[in-house]
Amino acid sequence: MSDQDSGAGHLHRLVLFSDAVFAIAITLLAIEIHPPHHWNGIRDLFAQMGVKLWAYAISFAVVGIYWISHRRIFQRLRSANVVLDVLNFIVLGLVALLPLGTELLWEQRAGQAFPVYVGLVALIGLAIALLWAYAAFVGKLAHPTPKAEAVYVMLRVALLPGFMCGMSFVSLVYPWGWAVMAATLVGLQWLNRRIARVSQAQAT
Amino acid sequence: MSDQDSGAGHLHRLVLFSDAVFAIAITLLAIEIHPPHHWNGIRDLFAQMGVKLWAYAISFAVVGIYWISHRRIFQRLRSANVVLDVLNFIVLGLVALLPLGTELLWEQRAGQAFPVYVGLVALIGLAIALLWAYAAFVGKLAHPTPKAEAVYVMLRVALLPGFMCGMSFVSLVYPWGWAVMAATLVGLQWLNRRIARVSQAQAT
Amino acid sequence: MSDQDSGAGHLHRLVLFSDAVFAIAITLLAIEIHPPHHWNGIRDLFAQMGVKLWAYAISFAVVGIYWISHRRIFQRLRSANVVLDVLNFIVLGLVALLPLGTELLWEQRAGQAFPVYVGLVALIGLAIALLWAYAAFVGKLAHPTPKAEAVYVMLRVALLPGFMCGMSFVSLVYPWGWAVMAATLVGLQWLNRRIARVSQAQAT
Amino acid sequence: MSDQDSGAGHLHRLVLFSDAVFAIAITLLAIEIHPPHHWNGIRDLFAQMGVKLWAYAISFAVVGIYWISHRRIFQRLRSANVVLDVLNFIVLGLVALLPLGTELLWEQRAGQAFPVYVGLVALIGLAIALLWAYAAFVGKLAHPTPKAEAVYVMLRVALLPGFMCGMSFVSLVYPWGWAVMAATLVGLQWLNRRIARVSQAQAT
Repeated sequence: MSDQDSGAGHLHRLVLFSDAVFAIAITLLAIEIHPPHHWNGIRDLFAQMGVKLWAYAISFAVVGIYWISHRRIFQRLRSANVVLDVLNFIVLGLVALLPLGTELLWEQRAGQAFPVYVGLVALIGLAIALLWAYAAFVGKLAHPTPKAEAVYVMLRVALLPGFMCGMSFVSLVYPWGWAVMAATLVGLQWLNRRIARVSQAQAT
Repeated sequence: MSDQDSGAGHLHRLVLFSDAVFAIAITLLAIEIHPPHHWNGIRDLFAQMGVKLWAYAISFAVVGIYWISHRRIFQRLRSANVVLDVLNFIVLGLVALLPLGTELLWEQRAGQAFPVYVGLVALIGLAIALLWAYAAFVGKLAHPTPKAEAVYVMLRVALLPGFMCGMSFVSLVYPWGWAVMAATLVGLQWLNRRIARVSQAQAT
Repeated sequence: MSDQDSGAGHLHRLVLFSDAVFAIAITLLAIEIHPPHHWNGIRDLFAQMGVKLWAYAISFAVVGIYWISHRRIFQRLRSANVVLDVLNFIVLGLVALLPLGTELLWEQRAGQAFPVYVGLVALIGLAIALLWAYAAFVGKLAHPTPKAEAVYVMLRVALLPGFMCGMSFVSLVYPWGWAVMAATLVGLQWLNRRIARVSQAQAT
Repeated sequence: MSDQDSGAGHLHRLVLFSDAVFAIAITLLAIEIHPPHHWNGIRDLFAQMGVKLWAYAISFAVVGIYWISHRRIFQRLRSANVVLDVLNFIVLGLVALLPLGTELLWEQRAGQAFPVYVGLVALIGLAIALLWAYAAFVGKLAHPTPKAEAVYVMLRVALLPGFMCGMSFVSLVYPWGWAVMAATLVGLQWLNRRIARVSQAQAT
């Protein structure tokens, strides 16, 4: 029956549905944070809640970055099918686990929660990359895109957020991590511009 | 007053509303999962959380499959009325119980939760089938559909998800269950193609 | 600044926002229901959860009925302004209290929760009636409607849901309550038709 | 890649996403309110729940006012870019903390929660003002607006809600606070009209 689905309306409903899941996941991040039972003055309040608020801010940034990635990749699509539905559900199913991951982060013991959290973040990136790879190379659901650009988009979403999330935790201990992150962003900027030039050259 | 409702706008608002309920139900599935109080290493963490994550994955799949069914059936509609509102509310009211059903599943004792869970899943399928039966045969709210196809659509959503959900639990104990599930899918594929041929023959 | 708001886009965004609040309130109704700690067999499970599931079903019906009322009244509007925003927020603020009201209902002691719950339901109806009264008679935000019809719409949403909700609790004790409810619906049907005839007569 | 984003579709998806976050935050405000364990009569119920319901009403009003501000400012935009995404995420991240702030408010000790709550409310206003400042003066994302009007819009959302929220708490202790609030609103009304006149003069 999937051939009867009108692709554009289907795509629109898929985007709205995904937005709702992102919005709920991002708002639920805060719902498990409760005020401490005893506190004395604003300073004490923030001292007691600091870790939770940091964990919240990090996860909010993660959801935000993936929402932007998701929006950009869906802007490149022109149609949807059932396989895309399923791949998108995998993405959403992982995003919906972020409130749980955030709780792990603020209750963590001896840094054991960091690899779990980074692993979850990296998995979301891989799931979006898989979705894009299917849409661009197999399902032919994307607007025409030069192959180099399509590969670059896939690799970037697959690797960048997980790498940056992991590096920012590393950087808390080893300050040279910030330099690695800056270098990565500068390198990507350069690659970005190079691929745009190649794509343009192919177009003309 | 229902005759004054402009059917298409009504249908659109009904779809958006349903999407929001599906999205919230799917995201709330994870919210009752909390990290264990004591854990030592990632292996131990997953050993302790394994059952909950499986229950989550199963329910996420169930909501996903029903969202796809719901989307496909509403794609076949061209209008809505108050009776459709009520039938759709029954569907949504059952979907919103899935987080509770999932909790039952991971706290289960001696397999007693399986029939309750499968019963809930089967009820959602029956409710969607009822909605479609009303829309196609009574309320004349659907785009023209050959009768054989309409009956097939109704029976498939009424029976398939509940049956597959039940069989996958059976298959955990009796491995021949997987064979039954595979045979069912192949049989449906064949039926699917046959009905498409009949519908085409009627159209010409 | 409110004069600069383009009314139709404003109205659209208000409807989407309201739908989201209704959808969240309806889905959260179930989230406070947890499985009992000990249960033995499906029969025992339902015996222990019966009251909660009834309370859930009643509140789901209440939200459903008010969603339909809200949709119908907004279908009669052609524009929005800041006053409508505020009145609509009052409606939504009361709807969002329904999960709390439902909890009261299933934890009730000696029937004391019934009047509180019925009061909340009645307040939502009054708030929607106030919104419609403003839109139709003061703000001139509605499509042209004969005055008798506008008054009837206002009175119906102000009184009917609260009355029916209260009567259905009364009917649990005094069975003649069901007869009163049936008579009310028949009477409204008659009034409905009469007003349609008057409106038509005025139009021609 | 941000240059490739089609601004209008991007803006539309950003608005829908923001609405969902506002709607969820506003509905979750009520979810942490539970009925008291023991109560005797409606009077006792409200005596015990009064503070929570007041805190709920205040926060509902805050979210409502900011939703209206957000809607009005986005109505002035014609396009979106990645910087706007990020600034909007900061707004939403603060809005999603309001249920936590509300909990602080009703569990407060010796008025210590008031400055924290007012600080959160003021921060949301500043974040929206920052978003508007970027959109109007840096990113050129707004419909053409006279500079005086743009500055006034920025200052109003930056200062007014936080000031009014703080003053209404002050007024509980010092009744002259109400007079200050009334004077502020009258002054703004006057400023509002003056700026409209200047804008009109510039346009002709």
